Amino acid sequence: MPDLDRIVKDIAEEMRARPDRGTVASYIPELARVDPQAFGLVVIDGDGRVAAGGDADSPFSIQSISKVFTLTLALGMVGDRLWRRVGREPSGSPFNSIVQLERENGIPRNPFINAGAIAVTDLILSGHQPREALGEILRFMQFVAQDNSIAIDERVAASEKRTGFRNAALANYMRSFNVIENPVDYTLGVYFHHCAIAMTCRQLATAGLFLAYSGHHPLAGHSVISAERARRINAIMLTCGHYDGSGDFAYRVGLPGKSGVGGGILAVAPGKASICVWSPGLDAAGNSHLGRIALEMLVKRTGWSIFGV
Amino acid sequence: MPDLDRIVKDIAEEMRARPDRGTVASYIPELARVDPQAFGLVVIDGDGRVAAGGDADSPFSIQSISKVFTLTLALGMVGDRLWRRVGREPSGSPFNSIVQLERENGIPRNPFINAGAIAVTDLILSGHQPREALGEILRFMQFVAQDNSIAIDERVAASEKRTGFRNAALANYMRSFNVIENPVDYTLGVYFHHCAIAMTCRQLATAGLFLAYSGHHPLAGHSVISAERARRINAIMLTCGHYDGSGDFAYRVGLPGKSGVGGGILAVAPGKASICVWSPGLDAAGNSHLGRIALEMLVKRTGWSIFGV
Amino acid sequence: MPDLDRIVKDIAEEMRARPDRGTVASYIPELARVDPQAFGLVVIDGDGRVAAGGDADSPFSIQSISKVFTLTLALGMVGDRLWRRVGREPSGSPFNSIVQLERENGIPRNPFINAGAIAVTDLILSGHQPREALGEILRFMQFVAQDNSIAIDERVAASEKRTGFRNAALANYMRSFNVIENPVDYTLGVYFHHCAIAMTCRQLATAGLFLAYSGHHPLAGHSVISAERARRINAIMLTCGHYDGSGDFAYRVGLPGKSGVGGGILAVAPGKASICVWSPGLDAAGNSHLGRIALEMLVKRTGWSIFGV
Amino acid sequence: MPDLDRIVKDIAEEMRARPDRGTVASYIPELARVDPQAFGLVVIDGDGRVAAGGDADSPFSIQSISKVFTLTLALGMVGDRLWRRVGREPSGSPFNSIVQLERENGIPRNPFINAGAIAVTDLILSGHQPREALGEILRFMQFVAQDNSIAIDERVAASEKRTGFRNAALANYMRSFNVIENPVDYTLGVYFHHCAIAMTCRQLATAGLFLAYSGHHPLAGHSVISAERARRINAIMLTCGHYDGSGDFAYRVGLPGKSGVGGGILAVAPGKASICVWSPGLDAAGNSHLGRIALEMLVKRTGWSIFGV
Repeated sequence: MPDLDRIVKDIAEEMRARPDRGTVASYIPELARVDPQAFGLVVIDGDGRVAAGGDADSPFSIQSISKVFTLTLALGMVGDRLWRRVGREPSGSPFNSIVQLERENGIPRNPFINAGAIAVTDLILSGHQPREALGEILRFMQFVAQDNSIAIDERVAASEKRTGFRNAALANYMRSFNVIENPVDYTLGVYFHHCAIAMTCRQLATAGLFLAYSGHHPLAGHSVISAERARRINAIMLTCGHYDGSGDFAYRVGLPGKSGVGGGILAVAPGKASICVWSPGLDAAGNSHLGRIALEMLVKRTGWSIFGV
Repeated sequence: MPDLDRIVKDIAEEMRARPDRGTVASYIPELARVDPQAFGLVVIDGDGRVAAGGDADSPFSIQSISKVFTLTLALGMVGDRLWRRVGREPSGSPFNSIVQLERENGIPRNPFINAGAIAVTDLILSGHQPREALGEILRFMQFVAQDNSIAIDERVAASEKRTGFRNAALANYMRSFNVIENPVDYTLGVYFHHCAIAMTCRQLATAGLFLAYSGHHPLAGHSVISAERARRINAIMLTCGHYDGSGDFAYRVGLPGKSGVGGGILAVAPGKASICVWSPGLDAAGNSHLGRIALEMLVKRTGWSIFGV
Repeated sequence: MPDLDRIVKDIAEEMRARPDRGTVASYIPELARVDPQAFGLVVIDGDGRVAAGGDADSPFSIQSISKVFTLTLALGMVGDRLWRRVGREPSGSPFNSIVQLERENGIPRNPFINAGAIAVTDLILSGHQPREALGEILRFMQFVAQDNSIAIDERVAASEKRTGFRNAALANYMRSFNVIENPVDYTLGVYFHHCAIAMTCRQLATAGLFLAYSGHHPLAGHSVISAERARRINAIMLTCGHYDGSGDFAYRVGLPGKSGVGGGILAVAPGKASICVWSPGLDAAGNSHLGRIALEMLVKRTGWSIFGV
Repeated sequence: MPDLDRIVKDIAEEMRARPDRGTVASYIPELARVDPQAFGLVVIDGDGRVAAGGDADSPFSIQSISKVFTLTLALGMVGDRLWRRVGREPSGSPFNSIVQLERENGIPRNPFINAGAIAVTDLILSGHQPREALGEILRFMQFVAQDNSIAIDERVAASEKRTGFRNAALANYMRSFNVIENPVDYTLGVYFHHCAIAMTCRQLATAGLFLAYSGHHPLAGHSVISAERARRINAIMLTCGHYDGSGDFAYRVGLPGKSGVGGGILAVAPGKASICVWSPGLDAAGNSHLGRIALEMLVKRTGWSIFGV
């Protein structure tokens, strides 16, 4: 795809030059060290063709992007029972808000806010040791990314654990409603570790292919989930994937996507491509500032919006 | 489209037979009188082909579906200045909540909750008499629906005015922040009246065609809005069109849509069709119970989900 | 009472000299014109002895202090039925918050926040014309203040009406729950007018005597309410009389009191005296800045705290 | 005091006979085992005269009543610096609400809701081992109660720890704002243990004497705190001592008081007596049902209300 290659490289160059880069997340010391100038963009289609620009092969902390994959994994394990523990409505509040939990009896609004992802992690953990659950998550990531070298950045995980009091509050709160069933420390341990997985744009774009192709992973050569489940996960990404900036992302970009405070965004153009962009500076809602702008450009130039050509 | 015709008629028949019909809105006496057995479904494509089932030509109160058209009209009048008065994020709360307004300085979260639609109405009103503004809205509806017989049900409007204290609270609250600038009674008068427009499924499906076809109305034969604006309105419908059931609608149906408490839902399959379904019984979130189920079936049988085949 | 006279005059002098004067309320243009240098303090005991300092005879807008007297009047009219419409718990939020109303089905938390006072006014209005209800309130104020010259400042009332959108929001919201039963405009009209009564410190201190003396008004020479009701109104003043600064006022001053945004505070030392202080500058919680400080001094020097010598 | 003795015994008898006994707290298994028929009432004055009725010498779990004493102790240790960590306004919400913490940057509204008491405990802990801090609290209780046999019920403490997820959520949440500085487990450990102190009505009434007598403990024979501090603690008890039933308690009883979910209430009649009542059944706001009624009777018969005779 020669044109797409040009588009991706042009965007990467434009992004490199921009002075406005957002603010690198500082709440975890390890994340604050990342170079704000970094920018990477990778687009992969169902035939495995890749268009890459910028720091396409630099690993970064995927953070909340992991929530897409833990949701996929948990749905595979417990099916629609999952929805007894987690809702699927946008939250209308910041990613780590506890207010909503009090109003709604400890049931998090969706699997992509912190509380929801912790509840999903708790479901994956059930009946396993933390180490086993984490191994399962990591192997799933390696499989969909088609790369066994993917690993957890232990320093980030440790850093997160030391400072994760807000998440500990969310977990304990849900535990008081039995929305979480395992020991809080176990669940949080697995959660902090899967958020600390380090991946490159290329790896993440590969990992998202099954969502772009109706549950079938064209490079792995077989089906990961059903077409219906893939559509549904895409729907949740569209309505809830960017915290309290989800509406704006849908409005500007028009693709299902999931962002992480590490500066990555995974986006899915159904039937067309899987996309990963990375730029560490965040906007006020906690989403990658240039990442969102780059995706807006990409969709404008390719006509990939799901809301019409 | 013979197959589509079959699908639509099958769904209408199945819906007719179902015992679960939701609860007809009772907060306005006029709405409470509607027959809960009513069901209509109309699909229209860009060539003007129509598949219709059930009560396709019974007029009903469009209520909040009017918000899609007032938003379109207001964007045409004031452009992106509109977004200084209204946000575009899902609300995470019921359609008539005032809590969010207090937290966010009187700026409603999106144009599809009541407060947001009242603020949009206020923008349309600016510098006009209520009668003029209302005339403009009605002519726009007649134009996009290609039917000059469309009218306001004055009994519903009067009924709404008599009981609309919650909306009066919202309007006065926004007025205290200067988010509304016209006399509150004027703005509410126009708002209550455009919610009281009566239309059939056939008319509403026709009216939505420009959103399905990139801003171009294939039957009117010319452009209503730009392709970009059409995509963006669709995005807002997807994330905010069903109050606090928007996430679930995206998850189950996978099309941009807007519901009204009259039991109608307008849905848009970009590039494929404009759809209107009507069944007066509502679910807990205030959206048509059978309407949503019918759309879920339609999308499953046609493969029209925007989230993948 | 020679000592008390000295104490009161000393405090008035100290207050005159202080540079920190708070901020004069600006939300009503008429209130913003008041001289921030004004300060008055009057203490009256059950024998009619008066200690006065500063601007003891300058009239000011009593604003929310009127709520003590409308509560007294309404309890006399409807008795404990009043508590079906209004709670008696501190609100934990600003004086004009609407959030609490949504959470608690339109029942205001107490009669001293705006919503609660509007609901109380609505009870007084029942079955009367606004003019009659207002006449009744005014006559009651004249009686307890023992001064028939007390009047409403019509400019303040008109000013309040023009800008009272937040109060109109509260009233309409309660009307939607049938907590208010009269036409919203009628109730608000009476409310705005009784808040606009102008009185001097001397008049207000006189008016409060029946609360300091177990319901008996020593100067009027007969009982206004029962001893039990007087105690109960004092209790509500203590817990709810200073909006979201009620706890701090109890902590620092230790007397039941009610403040108004006109800068007045009426305080009651049971069995000892009725006190009124006035200084127009407000603190962050909307209570008279120097008024509170003056009362803290007075209580320290007299040992009148209800919480121990 | 022969009359008082009669009054107390009469009330105890009346209470024994009443069928309405509220609901015994069940959230801790150990508390749920208490006999709902139990009722005790003890009044002690400054000369050490005691009027006792019912189960005056049965030990019960003091629970939140301990918060009065930890506040006293912490104020003695850090003085008014304490108010940087905790507010002193009524909360307007249930005792274990986390919503308010999010709105106010992790600063609890007052020292008598759970979050506030945990923050106070954290101040006492600073620089000590949990065991030391707990020893200090216990010795203080033994001293003011003039009884060295007072001890912690370890089964209650252990029970509380196992089920205290909501409190763990509050503590972690405050820790994320640095309102708590010690390891969360340490602070919670001390908190759970001081809530689990077991005392009788007689012991608690003795312990409250210094609050009734301007900081001076008439039986211990010396001053515990200054008169000003005693008044201020009484003020906080009045406005915040009964969770979201504080306004109602002030309205009905008219004394500073603090309740615990074990069914005890400590009340203070300044200059007159210290009172403790115990009845395990709670009302909807979490305060002793018969305890409140008994105190209302006592105050009516003695004329001890602080709001007037």
